[in-house]
Amino acid sequence: LAVPEVSLDVDWSRSGRVKSKGKDKAKWTWGPDGQGAVLLVNCDRDSPGAGGTDSGEADIRTLADLQDMSVMLLRTQGPSAIFAEYPVVLHVPESDADKVRVFHAARGDAHPLYKPVLGPDKLSYVLEHAGQGDSTFYVEGLAFPDRGFTGLVTFSASLLEEPHKDSPGTPIFTDTVVFRVAPWIMTPNTQQPLEVFQGSDSNEAFLEGLRALLRKANCKLTVCAEQDTRSDRWIQDELEFGYVEAPHKSFPVVFDSPRNRGLKDFAFKKILGPDFGYVTREPPGKSVTSLDSFGNLDVSPPVTVRGKEYPLGRILIGSPLPWAAGRRMCRAVRDFLFAQTVQAPLEVYSEWLSVGHVDEFLTFVPALDRKGFRLLLASPNACYKLFTEKQQQGHGEATQFIGLKGTEKKTIDEILADESLRSDNRHVQRCIDWNRDLLKQELGLSEQDIVDIPQLFILTNSRADALFPDMVNMLVLGRHLGIPKPFGPVVGGRCCLEQRVRELLEPLGLSCTFIDDFFSYHVLSGDVHCGTNVRRKPFAFKWWNVVP
Amino acid sequence: LAVPEVSLDVDWSRSGRVKSKGKDKAKWTWGPDGQGAVLLVNCDRDSPGAGGTDSGEADIRTLADLQDMSVMLLRTQGPSAIFAEYPVVLHVPESDADKVRVFHAARGDAHPLYKPVLGPDKLSYVLEHAGQGDSTFYVEGLAFPDRGFTGLVTFSASLLEEPHKDSPGTPIFTDTVVFRVAPWIMTPNTQQPLEVFQGSDSNEAFLEGLRALLRKANCKLTVCAEQDTRSDRWIQDELEFGYVEAPHKSFPVVFDSPRNRGLKDFAFKKILGPDFGYVTREPPGKSVTSLDSFGNLDVSPPVTVRGKEYPLGRILIGSPLPWAAGRRMCRAVRDFLFAQTVQAPLEVYSEWLSVGHVDEFLTFVPALDRKGFRLLLASPNACYKLFTEKQQQGHGEATQFIGLKGTEKKTIDEILADESLRSDNRHVQRCIDWNRDLLKQELGLSEQDIVDIPQLFILTNSRADALFPDMVNMLVLGRHLGIPKPFGPVVGGRCCLEQRVRELLEPLGLSCTFIDDFFSYHVLSGDVHCGTNVRRKPFAFKWWNVVP
Repeated sequence: LAVPEVSLDVDWSRSGRVKSKGKDKAKWTWGPDGQGAVLLVNCDRDSPGAGGTDSGEADIRTLADLQDMSVMLLRTQGPSAIFAEYPVVLHVPESDADKVRVFHAARGDAHPLYKPVLGPDKLSYVLEHAGQGDSTFYVEGLAFPDRGFTGLVTFSASLLEEPHKDSPGTPIFTDTVVFRVAPWIMTPNTQQPLEVFQGSDSNEAFLEGLRALLRKANCKLTVCAEQDTRSDRWIQDELEFGYVEAPHKSFPVVFDSPRNRGLKDFAFKKILGPDFGYVTREPPGKSVTSLDSFGNLDVSPPVTVRGKEYPLGRILIGSPLPWAAGRRMCRAVRDFLFAQTVQAPLEVYSEWLSVGHVDEFLTFVPALDRKGFRLLLASPNACYKLFTEKQQQGHGEATQFIGLKGTEKKTIDEILADESLRSDNRHVQRCIDWNRDLLKQELGLSEQDIVDIPQLFILTNSRADALFPDMVNMLVLGRHLGIPKPFGPVVGGRCCLEQRVRELLEPLGLSCTFIDDFFSYHVLSGDVHCGTNVRRKPFAFKWWNVVP
Repeated sequence: LAVPEVSLDVDWSRSGRVKSKGKDKAKWTWGPDGQGAVLLVNCDRDSPGAGGTDSGEADIRTLADLQDMSVMLLRTQGPSAIFAEYPVVLHVPESDADKVRVFHAARGDAHPLYKPVLGPDKLSYVLEHAGQGDSTFYVEGLAFPDRGFTGLVTFSASLLEEPHKDSPGTPIFTDTVVFRVAPWIMTPNTQQPLEVFQGSDSNEAFLEGLRALLRKANCKLTVCAEQDTRSDRWIQDELEFGYVEAPHKSFPVVFDSPRNRGLKDFAFKKILGPDFGYVTREPPGKSVTSLDSFGNLDVSPPVTVRGKEYPLGRILIGSPLPWAAGRRMCRAVRDFLFAQTVQAPLEVYSEWLSVGHVDEFLTFVPALDRKGFRLLLASPNACYKLFTEKQQQGHGEATQFIGLKGTEKKTIDEILADESLRSDNRHVQRCIDWNRDLLKQELGLSEQDIVDIPQLFILTNSRADALFPDMVNMLVLGRHLGIPKPFGPVVGGRCCLEQRVRELLEPLGLSCTFIDDFFSYHVLSGDVHCGTNVRRKPFAFKWWNVVP
């Protein structure tokens, strides 16, 4: 008796090509010695007719669209009489079916046709011409990993016996393969910038400073048109750029925040396109707080923590203290971020701030030595230390906010004498110190990896705002930093805050450009970082080589 | 300045005692070198006043009840002036608070009082007499691991600065410990039996056979009273006995199935009690199928699969084929079983049977050689082979069902000549073979680990029922097996089926007792296993030593 051959094959070795043999094809394992194929969520818009992302459409697709998909080959060899009696069926478990769609390349036509054969509510597909060699299938992901979905999806091909019409066929032989849906990956400040977006062109002083920085950094600037931003200048808060990657294909994906102000439709209408994907998450009732803005979402550079490697860094989310109630990023977004797994998120304490974003008290800058970066923390203590030094050097009369119309200008002496301000900043320092301890532990940092940037805050209703432009709220483009101009007390013709920050950062090889964002952003409770957004180069490191 | 000491301590080394020092107390790791404390769901009923399980009550508890809980010590040392200014607070993250309750042993009374201080809606507790040494807390679990709850629960003690009345205090120092809620663990047939329950005392023939078996096995028999069973004889289907274990305490826990027939209240009313816990899961609409019965839930003996160890075996759940719709155990129960993690469940194909339970085509028996057990599979092929042998030896006239009134008696010749029956059993064999391949792969078995037990089935509406008492549906009590008496064709004065089964199993050191369940169970579509249930000895192996 001739034994028919049925084999289902994918790119299990992650080489970018389908391999015909493999051991344990049904297992997916992490790491450089791991195996198992990768699937992309087809969340870009290659098909011109598509109203949303490509994966929203079940129809036949374009060739460009097929390149986002993973190839799956079904090889059937043997006498056609056997396949006539025992059909070959391709199938997907019920639990996975709503996460994927499979297209079959129908053969024999001048123009090949790609028709959807498996997917939501379509669990099995009987192969029509079994025994005649290879059939090519294209697989797209419909859903990112999330709460209740690890990202693993299984397909099987079976040779079926169908003894009774009412009975589901019984598989005589089954070959199974497994894919993992690629996670959405964020890029830290240490990744090379590709394009800077600016939310609003309303302020010339700001834009001039930004243009100067971008010339130095040799980076593309895209200023969003007024009709697209609808007077919403906080583009950092509306979206986060990331990417997805498979061995055969990678493309950027914008994560649209549930914060829905003027820039609400910007990512969907202006960013989503060919090879630029889109994803969003919203809380059930769509009720959000300031902590849902993506200025409250950041990612560290790669770190190693007590021997455990995070080669893609760790995501940072601003939250209340773990045991406290209060404003918190919605669960739908947090669940999504945690489910991507390769950038193991960490919740830090940011709810002590009025706006409540992580980018108000920390950032990361590249460095050539040590771990390749420094953590910059806003520091009231460092600011009091600087001002006390200047006072002792006889500069107590030096005044801040020079040249800024309509602002309350204080001298160093006045600032140091303000006991209420001191008390506010003692509290702020405690809050930042709590995070410092957490970040040292969870990112494996030592004191030498941290730089304290002088900064004062003031409390209103027990929540903190920056007293002058918040310098850690900076734009990082390689070694070029766009820092909110602090308008600090002028000593010897120079701002002593700028001077101190230069002394701290320039020895690391960094270049500081101070940008005047006072009236365009600072007085509205944000600074340079809040008003910009950067698309960065993906990691060279492949996420499937992470060992979680 | 005197530095105050604040330390939170638990049994992180799993010795049964609280250890005062520990590295990385906030980490929980698996395995013999792992660390992290263990918590029990306080799901027994020690407190006589409790209407349900103890953990359902928030009130003060009995001393017996406290023994189910894990001790947590909060040590505070230092000048009381410091603690007056900086209070010590014990707290639990919002996400964990509904999974636990913490009691504080109030000191200074003749009778110590235990009052609930943390739990659902109670995230923090200010210590009243900080600085005066140890405070003792008792922690109980309220929820088993489940979908969306890994079982990990974190507690922290912080020294707080409270600068503003409206602001949450800022922690200056925090000490954190982590517990894992102990999973519910099933016991396979290879574990020593402690007590056998029988669902109904209506049939004397059955009970007599059962009593004979239990005498041989030297095991306690509990026959449920008619008013408790309410004419429901299927006690295997109503509940599953398991246990929970912590280093300081272990007790059995009955899992009550969502199947709610006559025995509906039995587990809650008759099993739940002091040091006997109770847990249940029901689908949202309470609509269940036959596959929700726990005759459809089993667990393998310990196995090693391609190097990976499952020292507590693997749970088996009967399901449809992975890509097929149809009757399936409800998600609430499957989610619960998967979330326990230490007995990594496996879904096999049982939906081809009318009743649809795993115990209709497989069981495990202990063996002294090889892996310590054999998998027994019902086998139409083995039955046809046996009957053909007997026919060739001239016994074609041998007749089944002798002595059974009102049954259709067939000879070996007639059975072998029945083409429709042959066709039915070819299908059944395919279904069982599909499971055989799966079980070999997922339990790491070879052909030598499997014994084929002769058995025929018949299809009605494309679903299978046993044609004669289903021998694999047996009661396993150590080496003593209570096997449904098959009433097979009599050859030379002996039932050739019993004879063949003895030849297969006795060389393994097993003792076969055939029990007549024909009219009491078999004609109602079940057999010995369905009508009994066994509480077994817990594993000696500690679940926290599993490496998942």
